[in-house]
Amino acid sequence: MLASERKKTRYCNMAIVLYELAGADPGLRFSPYCWRSRMALAHKDLTVRTIPWRFSEKQALAFSGQGRVPVLKDGNKTVVDSWAIASYLEERYDDRPSLFGGEMSHAHVRFMNAWTDTVLNPGIARMVVRDVLDALDSKDKAYFRKSREERFGMKLEQVQAGREERLPELRKMLEPVRIALGEQDWLGGDDGPSYADYILFGSFQWPRCISKFELLAKDDVLWGWRERMLDLFGGLGRSAKTVY
Amino acid sequence: MLASERKKTRYCNMAIVLYELAGADPGLRFSPYCWRSRMALAHKDLTVRTIPWRFSEKQALAFSGQGRVPVLKDGNKTVVDSWAIASYLEERYDDRPSLFGGEMSHAHVRFMNAWTDTVLNPGIARMVVRDVLDALDSKDKAYFRKSREERFGMKLEQVQAGREERLPELRKMLEPVRIALGEQDWLGGDDGPSYADYILFGSFQWPRCISKFELLAKDDVLWGWRERMLDLFGGLGRSAKTVY
Repeated sequence: MLASERKKTRYCNMAIVLYELAGADPGLRFSPYCWRSRMALAHKDLTVRTIPWRFSEKQALAFSGQGRVPVLKDGNKTVVDSWAIASYLEERYDDRPSLFGGEMSHAHVRFMNAWTDTVLNPGIARMVVRDVLDALDSKDKAYFRKSREERFGMKLEQVQAGREERLPELRKMLEPVRIALGEQDWLGGDDGPSYADYILFGSFQWPRCISKFELLAKDDVLWGWRERMLDLFGGLGRSAKTVY
Repeated sequence: MLASERKKTRYCNMAIVLYELAGADPGLRFSPYCWRSRMALAHKDLTVRTIPWRFSEKQALAFSGQGRVPVLKDGNKTVVDSWAIASYLEERYDDRPSLFGGEMSHAHVRFMNAWTDTVLNPGIARMVVRDVLDALDSKDKAYFRKSREERFGMKLEQVQAGREERLPELRKMLEPVRIALGEQDWLGGDDGPSYADYILFGSFQWPRCISKFELLAKDDVLWGWRERMLDLFGGLGRSAKTVY
């Protein structure tokens, strides 16, 4: 964090601050997990000041006791991890539109969250992880390549190779979401989006921001859902900076 | 349906009746979808009279306008499909313990339902589908083999072959559930099970009833969860008839 940033935070410590992953262009915000928090804040109609953060800026997050984003600061309260942030916002701002719709519902969304983290996001990573590298700040590139190549056990170029041929497999993986969205406008029902929608939206906003590679077919029910998501909150998602 | 059954239904038409898939032994009830409904009825503390049904008894379901179970009859009302049955029970018996926990939550469980139908259950079928054949009534066997071999594109023996080696893959598929249940006692939260738990339970009760093949490791958080599920409602699941 810059000294000027720190000062600002100190002087208006009631403002909500969100640390978000950024690319070489500080306006390029593409982390699926940060998008979850960003949409959750908008759902609660809360004003937020976002701070661009790069993988190599571990020191800037030292105050949070860990080194990953999103990190939320709300006055004196610091919350890390997208799920914890959503749960915090729901409880702290319980007079505002609900993200979950009750305790049992909050519990139900955990499965969706875990599925997205462990199945869908790794699947999408295999489509765009090499494109991510291009968008990163030069000081992040070596770390990103090394850590992700260790995770996948191969070069980033190999991970992403043949993505056109693998696209049907990814689309098949989305079948349970497709079935749910075939029955209702949002994962949260017909009345409007819930945090479940923001979880899934993050996974699509990520490739949308850092790659030209299109994951969805126009006749997919998911395409229409994503269009509705992009329109929410005055086009918050649609107006996001992209690499193209 | 036998004439005697029809008569009984007519004379006490306020009793809830559930048509359930049965094996050669009419007491052997193993359909994952029927178990969802059975547990949902118990959750609502509703008395039910179950009627064993075999694949070849299409005529017995003619009154429902289709040929699959579960089928619920509640007085003059007929409901088909496990999801529709759960939704019906929730609305009709809204003064009893909730299965979903509100409308948004009901919407959220759709994803879990669709994932179980399209990912988990086909995965479990590949482990036990040949064992199912052994448990069926002789009049069902030819139909079952033909329809399932068409679905899988191979002999039932080939589908089930090598299941020991494929077990890690199935267990990996369960990772999102494992993460959710690592954080809370039930998919519905810490206070008790919800319909999401009954959906998943059906998928485990099915192999438990018709096969000796064990899908879970004892140190899996899912094992403990299944034990708790088997104990519910006076051991409704635990006391179910099995082939062994």
